[in-house]
Amino acid sequence: MSQAVEADDRSDELDVTTDEDAAVSILTNGDPIRSLVQLLSPVAEEFRVRLDGDGLHTRAVDPANVGLIDFTAHAQGFEQFDVTEPTTFGLSLSAFKNAVSWARKRGGDGDPVAIDIYDDPARMRVRVTRPDQEITRVTEWFGVDPEKIREEPNMPDLSLPGRADPGVKAFNQAVKAIDSNHEEAYVTRDGSTFVLGSQDGGDTTPDDDEDDPQDAVMFTNCAWDETGDGEPCSTLFSLDYLTDIAASIKRGKSDRLLVKWGDEFPAKFEVEHDDWGFEATYMLAPRIQNDE
Amino acid sequence: MSQAVEADDRSDELDVTTDEDAAVSILTNGDPIRSLVQLLSPVAEEFRVRLDGDGLHTRAVDPANVGLIDFTAHAQGFEQFDVTEPTTFGLSLSAFKNAVSWARKRGGDGDPVAIDIYDDPARMRVRVTRPDQEITRVTEWFGVDPEKIREEPNMPDLSLPGRADPGVKAFNQAVKAIDSNHEEAYVTRDGSTFVLGSQDGGDTTPDDDEDDPQDAVMFTNCAWDETGDGEPCSTLFSLDYLTDIAASIKRGKSDRLLVKWGDEFPAKFEVEHDDWGFEATYMLAPRIQNDE
Amino acid sequence: MSQAVEADDRSDELDVTTDEDAAVSILTNGDPIRSLVQLLSPVAEEFRVRLDGDGLHTRAVDPANVGLIDFTAHAQGFEQFDVTEPTTFGLSLSAFKNAVSWARKRGGDGDPVAIDIYDDPARMRVRVTRPDQEITRVTEWFGVDPEKIREEPNMPDLSLPGRADPGVKAFNQAVKAIDSNHEEAYVTRDGSTFVLGSQDGGDTTPDDDEDDPQDAVMFTNCAWDETGDGEPCSTLFSLDYLTDIAASIKRGKSDRLLVKWGDEFPAKFEVEHDDWGFEATYMLAPRIQNDE
Repeated sequence: MSQAVEADDRSDELDVTTDEDAAVSILTNGDPIRSLVQLLSPVAEEFRVRLDGDGLHTRAVDPANVGLIDFTAHAQGFEQFDVTEPTTFGLSLSAFKNAVSWARKRGGDGDPVAIDIYDDPARMRVRVTRPDQEITRVTEWFGVDPEKIREEPNMPDLSLPGRADPGVKAFNQAVKAIDSNHEEAYVTRDGSTFVLGSQDGGDTTPDDDEDDPQDAVMFTNCAWDETGDGEPCSTLFSLDYLTDIAASIKRGKSDRLLVKWGDEFPAKFEVEHDDWGFEATYMLAPRIQNDE
Repeated sequence: MSQAVEADDRSDELDVTTDEDAAVSILTNGDPIRSLVQLLSPVAEEFRVRLDGDGLHTRAVDPANVGLIDFTAHAQGFEQFDVTEPTTFGLSLSAFKNAVSWARKRGGDGDPVAIDIYDDPARMRVRVTRPDQEITRVTEWFGVDPEKIREEPNMPDLSLPGRADPGVKAFNQAVKAIDSNHEEAYVTRDGSTFVLGSQDGGDTTPDDDEDDPQDAVMFTNCAWDETGDGEPCSTLFSLDYLTDIAASIKRGKSDRLLVKWGDEFPAKFEVEHDDWGFEATYMLAPRIQNDE
Repeated sequence: MSQAVEADDRSDELDVTTDEDAAVSILTNGDPIRSLVQLLSPVAEEFRVRLDGDGLHTRAVDPANVGLIDFTAHAQGFEQFDVTEPTTFGLSLSAFKNAVSWARKRGGDGDPVAIDIYDDPARMRVRVTRPDQEITRVTEWFGVDPEKIREEPNMPDLSLPGRADPGVKAFNQAVKAIDSNHEEAYVTRDGSTFVLGSQDGGDTTPDDDEDDPQDAVMFTNCAWDETGDGEPCSTLFSLDYLTDIAASIKRGKSDRLLVKWGDEFPAKFEVEHDDWGFEATYMLAPRIQNDE
């Protein structure tokens, strides 16, 4: 019962150290680890996380097969990243979020966080220290059996000539604005202007094609064509997914966003973090467009 | 479909200009236009808005005929107010609010907003620019047929000798305080003290008239009698309506509030904006009072 | 009706004075009186409040007999505390909270608050002034018949050798963290480390006693044993109650917290306020623990 908190868990509890017996031991801080949780959150609740000398890798698809994430956190981006043996851990994102969210973001990269992953039985122990309050929280729980998590999806090779690099914050606010009014949104470009817009809704005299009501956000000087042939392409998406992805990219403090799209193809939203070495690619399946 | 965003909507999209082909073209900013929405919001969802060389006028009554607003925005209060031909537009307040709310209030009067109103078919186009983010949102939708909106109510001529000019913020907080405890409130005065109060509720030993529990906010030195005969009058109102009106006056950043009331008559709440030239009069029907 | 606000209630309404005819008259301010409400709020809605020359005293138990509060506010901690005759008043905490919450906390101890308690009929009048807005709110309501409130519980004499004095804010955040994941929590110590933790939940491979998942917050250098025999004791509590008590201690701005516990005994949480002279002891009944 209560005595099951063993003495060795509590001695020197303000030292931020990992456990030598663990298969994987990671030292990080509140700000990056909470951002990592944010980046994973729009797609799935359970992840097969692979840990090896290069870092942490995971790829997951949402239950409806509409959104996919391919995520890498490079080992060099962590304060410590020791892998005794390459490990695949079945991560419940909500349990992980609950544990690491106790680390505050304030003061540089935030409160120290130590993560140990054990084999047999598979379990994770997260230790968060708040030095100023002289307190430490230790949370330990069993992993999900990786065999019971959906297989990692393949990342298809797609021809996506459309390119845009809008600001992360502006993109999120644009998606929220369109989402406040509409069910779906398209992306396209006009010359070097990236366009996120919608045609449905707000229409009180339907079926007048020439004057269809519109709602669009234009991003100046940030779009181009990868092939150089100059013909803009356009794809339509459900805002349910795009809103979650845009919010996570922003809350996850991504430094850069690159949008890649084609004509009625899945689009890719690629983000990078300069300081923490995170790389994520979201892929979003298109809505079939109505005829004009 | 997505290509229906025409090129001429997107060129020079960071220039804040209106359209020469529009019947009415207005240039304004986020702070005043969002305040205008706030002022209209407690009474109705659809408005017959008249636009002529003098400005923008509308008058509406709520569905239960309890609250009325008479609103004018003078042309001189806008950065540009061009009327090619006097126009009556059927405005859906929620569509308008969604479009103009993308303009932030920050930095002087806020982000630039261009409003164009077109005839045949009647439609409104709102263009909001965020210069620092280099993005523009264009929202266009059809007007409501003005014939389908309730006719403008008449403003009755009433004898309302009671007068008070409480602070806008203090009045809103007083109404909220009474509303947290009661269903209705009266207004009266005691000498130069304006009184907003309620008698019901909180009574655990009912029917002791002499010691009825009370809850009242007194505003020092701000009430008087227009006729000079000095006999205070008193009227009772439903707090459902008064709370919404007081909140909108405050959120709409009114500079001045004048309350006019009589004995069991409708009361008027008149507000003005010094910088933007808005004038609104709310009229609120009384509750029939219980006998003492 | 509305004229029932008597003239003498409104004259000089920005003077903060109490009433000579009252049985008890108290002058205080927004910050301390709102903190007093916070401290009483987790246990009950109605209180038998005793007022005598020493101050204000009350003791109450929650309807399920799980949590108890013993509260004293010393007369010296108020700006004025006049008791013409010792009085027992049946206080509805929600009515009192509504009235005193209109006093803001800002500027020193906050807006002035005058409280008068009358006999025959028993009633309370609270007068809150906001000098900068030149407004005063007067709220008056009848007391609850003290005979209809549960009798004051006895405070049992318990052997509680465990002692800890964690920070008020850290304790609240620790309880919230464990509560986000669990139904109950234990308190114990490891040497001088105070431990608040839980074992249930998060367990995906049940019944492996040796490796039970855990979630615990350790407070460094703040625990000891009153008897000096050094054997740590441990008690389990429902987080429903502990979360409310920890939040009230923090919102009520307690300066110090002392936790006293034994083995499967009720625990005590004692708090003090240096400036305002409040003293509160919460007692919380234990959950019966499962066998190991």
